[in-house]
Order: sequence, then structure tokens, then C-alpha cells
Amino acid sequence: MGFERTGGRQVWEGRIAAVRVDRFRYDDGSESEREIVAHPGAVAVVAHDGEHLYLVAQPREPVGEQALVELPAGKLDEEGESPLETAKRELAEEIGKGAREWRHLTTCFASPGFSDEEFHVYLATDLYDETADSGEEERIEVRTVRLSELDRAIRDCRDSKTLIGLLWLRAYGDRS
Amino acid sequence: MGFERTGGRQVWEGRIAAVRVDRFRYDDGSESEREIVAHPGAVAVVAHDGEHLYLVAQPREPVGEQALVELPAGKLDEEGESPLETAKRELAEEIGKGAREWRHLTTCFASPGFSDEEFHVYLATDLYDETADSGEEERIEVRTVRLSELDRAIRDCRDSKTLIGLLWLRAYGDRS
Repeated sequence: MGFERTGGRQVWEGRIAAVRVDRFRYDDGSESEREIVAHPGAVAVVAHDGEHLYLVAQPREPVGEQALVELPAGKLDEEGESPLETAKRELAEEIGKGAREWRHLTTCFASPGFSDEEFHVYLATDLYDETADSGEEERIEVRTVRLSELDRAIRDCRDSKTLIGLLWLRAYGDRS
Repeated sequence: MGFERTGGRQVWEGRIAAVRVDRFRYDDGSESEREIVAHPGAVAVVAHDGEHLYLVAQPREPVGEQALVELPAGKLDEEGESPLETAKRELAEEIGKGAREWRHLTTCFASPGFSDEEFHVYLATDLYDETADSGEEERIEVRTVRLSELDRAIRDCRDSKTLIGLLWLRAYGDRS
């Protein structure tokens, strides 16, 4: 059933996210209000050199994890930068690599029942060394995982965008 | 690097989510504030009968989608109900099925950089008819997809928890 947005108000604005309460009218004439968390979106990169995957571990305060293992990733928070450009920048900043081959695997909503956040997930192969300084204080450690241990990495994974990327690699390999 | 939470305040509370700004101290003595969206968590169910997958389409106002296709799913919003119990209830309410076989596939964080929401993803097989009334106004349509069209369903998917479930099925089948 279709709907249209008929109004709304912002109820909180933070440094990264904001919260709106929007009003919608449906095709049957009914109406409802929805709480919506607005987020700029994020990229994540499955990067491997044919032998090793490159993951990162970092503190994730919202979920109380001291070192959550994830794909190299970052928010779309640079004005005018495309998702692919953000992915390239984050790969250099977080694991010190560039890639000659880039493929877009999927773009999906993180949690579409209450947030507009989108993930853009890429596969990066044919890697080379390329460092970049984020200019930010980053508490990130690179973790390499053998491709032969991909199944274990999937079992241990606790991050949704990372699971999507690793499962995609497990299901389809470098074909995308 | 480790951290501990040293304080915080709630800055907004809605019907489903709330926002806190928490303060953390790291092992090197530095401190920072984090905006955290608190959410009760959700379950999602990969349900198939050996020939067809059962998906649902519903309006998702936060992302402007009139009919987003997802796994049967729901929030952990019933006091005292376990994730598996919620999964069983949602499967009956949303697609009118019960299942004799249940497997837990994974539990992961939806977006751990800013939210504490967790997804619990299950595989449900050996299905039978079992209806339940949610008591809520639900704008949900059941969509069946042939298992032989799983790859296309994955390509078309725009929901992260659904991608995790479908890719898990594609990668591992009914082994989990």
C-alpha cells in the first residue's frame, strides 16, 4: 500500500545522526507517525589479495565491544565525495592499501524500520600499498585473516555490513 | 584499546528508540562522547519449504520505500519473550506458518558505530500452516520466491538483515 509524507519535525540533532518524527498518509486514508533516525550512510570494503582478507578491529562504544572486527568502512561524511571515493579513501586510511579492481556488490538499508542509513559494499582486489592519514584520532588495528579461514570469520562476525561482505565473498567469490 | 563508560544522559526518548550521549574513558587516559541510538533489537527468519522462500513486502517510511521486500521479522518488544519465541510469533503473524526445524544462524549488530540494535537471524524449515493475529494494523504482503531464483532475490535485496539471511542460505544451504 502506498503512502506519502505529509509533514514532520526534527526532535534531536547530533554530530552524526538526527531524529525526526514524520507524518504519513496511506492510500486507504489512514495516517501514522514514524520516528526516523537520519544517518549519512556508510561504505564497507571486502579487500583481499588472494591469500588474506584485511579486516579491522576497533572499540565500538554503542555496543560495549572493546575490539569489534569489521570490514574497513566509514561514514559518507565528506561533502561531494561519492560512495566509491569514500571507500577508496577509507581503505587507504584504515589498512594502508589501494586496489586496482573495484566492484560494487550491493547497496542496502541498515535498519529500514527506523533509520535511513544505507550501506554501500564493495569488493577490492589487486591490492597495493597506499597510505593516507585521516587526520583523526583512530583507534583501529588491522587484522588479517586467511581466505581459507573465511568460514570461521563468518561464524565469529558480529557486524551486519561485514557479514554481508564476507557472505557475498563466500557465496560468489570474486564474481559479483 | 579498552574503554569504560564514565557517564551519560538520555537526550530523546521515542516509542521505539531512544538517544543517549555517553562519555567514555580509554586506556590511554583520553576521553570522548558518543551519540548512541538505543533500540530493542530484532529477529528475522529465513523460511522455506524446499521449493519456495517466504518473504514479505511492506511500506518502509524511513527510507521512502512503498514495498520493501524483507525476511519475516519483528522487534523484540514483548517483555520476557526470547528472540526465538519472537521469531516463531512473527513467522505465524506475518506469513501464517509454523516450522518444525529452527536453527540460529547468527546474531550481529545492525550498525555498531552509532546504535546498539542487534539482529538475531534464524533458519526455519519443515513448515506447516499456523496463523496468528498480531492485533496490530499490519500493511504486509507475503511474497513467495522460488529457491531456484535465490540469486536474483539477493541481487534485488535492499535490506541488510534479509541479505544476511539469503546469503547465508546461498553459501551454506540448510547446514548452518
